Amino acid sequence: MTDATSTQVQLASRPTGWPTADNFSIVRVELDDLAPGEVRVVNDFISVDPYMRGRMNDVKSYTPPYVLGETMTGGAVGRVVASASDAVTVGDTVVHQLGWRDVAQGDAAGFRVVPQIPGVPSSAYLGVLGMTALTAYVGLLEIAHLREGDTVFVSGAAGAVGSMVGQIARLKGASRVIGSAGTAEKVALLTERYGFDAAFNYKDAPVMDQLAQAAPDGIDVYFDNVGGDHLEAALAAFNDGGRAALCGAISEYNETGPAAGPRNMANIVTRGLMLQGFTVGNYTQHFPAFMADMTEWLTAGKVVFDETVVDGIENSVEAFLGLMRGENTGKMVVRTTPQD
Amino acid sequence: MTDATSTQVQLASRPTGWPTADNFSIVRVELDDLAPGEVRVVNDFISVDPYMRGRMNDVKSYTPPYVLGETMTGGAVGRVVASASDAVTVGDTVVHQLGWRDVAQGDAAGFRVVPQIPGVPSSAYLGVLGMTALTAYVGLLEIAHLREGDTVFVSGAAGAVGSMVGQIARLKGASRVIGSAGTAEKVALLTERYGFDAAFNYKDAPVMDQLAQAAPDGIDVYFDNVGGDHLEAALAAFNDGGRAALCGAISEYNETGPAAGPRNMANIVTRGLMLQGFTVGNYTQHFPAFMADMTEWLTAGKVVFDETVVDGIENSVEAFLGLMRGENTGKMVVRTTPQD
Repeated sequence: MTDATSTQVQLASRPTGWPTADNFSIVRVELDDLAPGEVRVVNDFISVDPYMRGRMNDVKSYTPPYVLGETMTGGAVGRVVASASDAVTVGDTVVHQLGWRDVAQGDAAGFRVVPQIPGVPSSAYLGVLGMTALTAYVGLLEIAHLREGDTVFVSGAAGAVGSMVGQIARLKGASRVIGSAGTAEKVALLTERYGFDAAFNYKDAPVMDQLAQAAPDGIDVYFDNVGGDHLEAALAAFNDGGRAALCGAISEYNETGPAAGPRNMANIVTRGLMLQGFTVGNYTQHFPAFMADMTEWLTAGKVVFDETVVDGIENSVEAFLGLMRGENTGKMVVRTTPQD
Repeated sequence: MTDATSTQVQLASRPTGWPTADNFSIVRVELDDLAPGEVRVVNDFISVDPYMRGRMNDVKSYTPPYVLGETMTGGAVGRVVASASDAVTVGDTVVHQLGWRDVAQGDAAGFRVVPQIPGVPSSAYLGVLGMTALTAYVGLLEIAHLREGDTVFVSGAAGAVGSMVGQIARLKGASRVIGSAGTAEKVALLTERYGFDAAFNYKDAPVMDQLAQAAPDGIDVYFDNVGGDHLEAALAAFNDGGRAALCGAISEYNETGPAAGPRNMANIVTRGLMLQGFTVGNYTQHFPAFMADMTEWLTAGKVVFDETVVDGIENSVEAFLGLMRGENTGKMVVRTTPQD
């Protein structure tokens, strides 16, 4: 069967600063026959995520670095085409971590069977029903301890995580939600589609000035996807007792030297602020609560989500680079099977 | 009676950078007769504390700025010499906020009667039995959530707060306590008198290198009195899930421009770190628990404390400047009554 051939993306060399296509190679791999307990999956979609940039560096972190000359990994969703396991049946839709390839094969324990929801594409399991939206949920509720009536600021607000943060914040009682994004189109989306109360283009003027204008009474919660001057602006805008969930710092991922921190760290003391970083992998115990809430919201039409779909495993590097450049609206995914 | 004359220190002009004697004036004030409900107190000791530097700026903060041409305030302890209140009796020892003067007068509600403990000078109520040690206690237990077995790092460790942090950490289960200070004598005190496991002089070599050497297995808790390169070093040394209580940043108080923040803020995300600032005034509800613990520890000889005493209200500005320069060991106080 043709499914025995897998097209895969490998890290050929470690990028310095911005990655280029030269840092990757695309290989075709003939898969072995299934061993007992294994399954083979034809991926529908693979996920490209900002955290993957960190894994391209040879630095010890919460996820191990990608190994040069080996196929990269990441979130993916697909259909089981062969199974040597009692736990997984051919035809099942499964979510797993063997992304960056069009056909995946491995022990069934690494594949989670999920229901196929009518009208919802399976890519949703990489976004609104997956780790992406769980990141928003956990960051707001478990890290920033969102309270009724809070004013919430989100950076990277039109991205996969940010657009969920804004909507979940409102659904959980925030009184005002402010977002920043990098194009006029995204800014319009924030207020017109995602229900933000205010939004601004961080390229138009200093973030600190625009945030002060959008939040005249200050902010209580900041969800940081960007770092840099956005974090500094949040520290300036915080009310006493403000809380920041630090999720990422995409503005710094491709810096070759260390970026200086905010110049107003002293506000952390004088205003009694709390900054907490997190990676969603340590908070998966909240997945059931998240799924219960999100399923209800989706069913009731209270949450909208967008995807930017790039076609073809051979374009997955370009999709990742586009993500780093902010070309996506909502979740960036790569569709790995041809649209017949 | 002579107690009707009070010598007081006023802020004459706002310092830029390091304060000088010219920024202050010493005035003699004739006190009014006691109004009903008022008391008059001859201070034994007044407190000089790093946070007062912030109050000399005209900046909105958690405590209001000192008003130019008015007598400054701050912690003080003294004896009641006259009382027009049923709540306070002549001869009582009282703790209050009308410092920076040798004779204080005001509504009895602002004066807290404390027991005179044999063998313990009343100045202890400004340090080991007062807000100073409460700061250490709250920061470790309520902010940094100290756990059994933690490795704890404290900057400004020979100071009034720092020396308490190290001792309380050990008494509450820390397995290793590391401190930094600015002279060889203080470093020796840390290990020989205050029970620190390791200590270093931050002027000898980069803090990051010295901390890495003192904490080969990383740190779990950082109590920050200093800011700047100390905080950056802590962020580099933190184990996953590390927690920082940010209490002050004495290294930055006299900077005229904003100091750049740590260059390794990204570690907050990747290691799931928590940084929380606090000012002790918001945590006075823990005072009873603190007093119970501290009284037991003092009685059992489990806590030692030092004071640096400067004599004379007229030398209180110099005492404050000495504190900013790190000339004190333990709590810096000014003895305001002559030693007859």
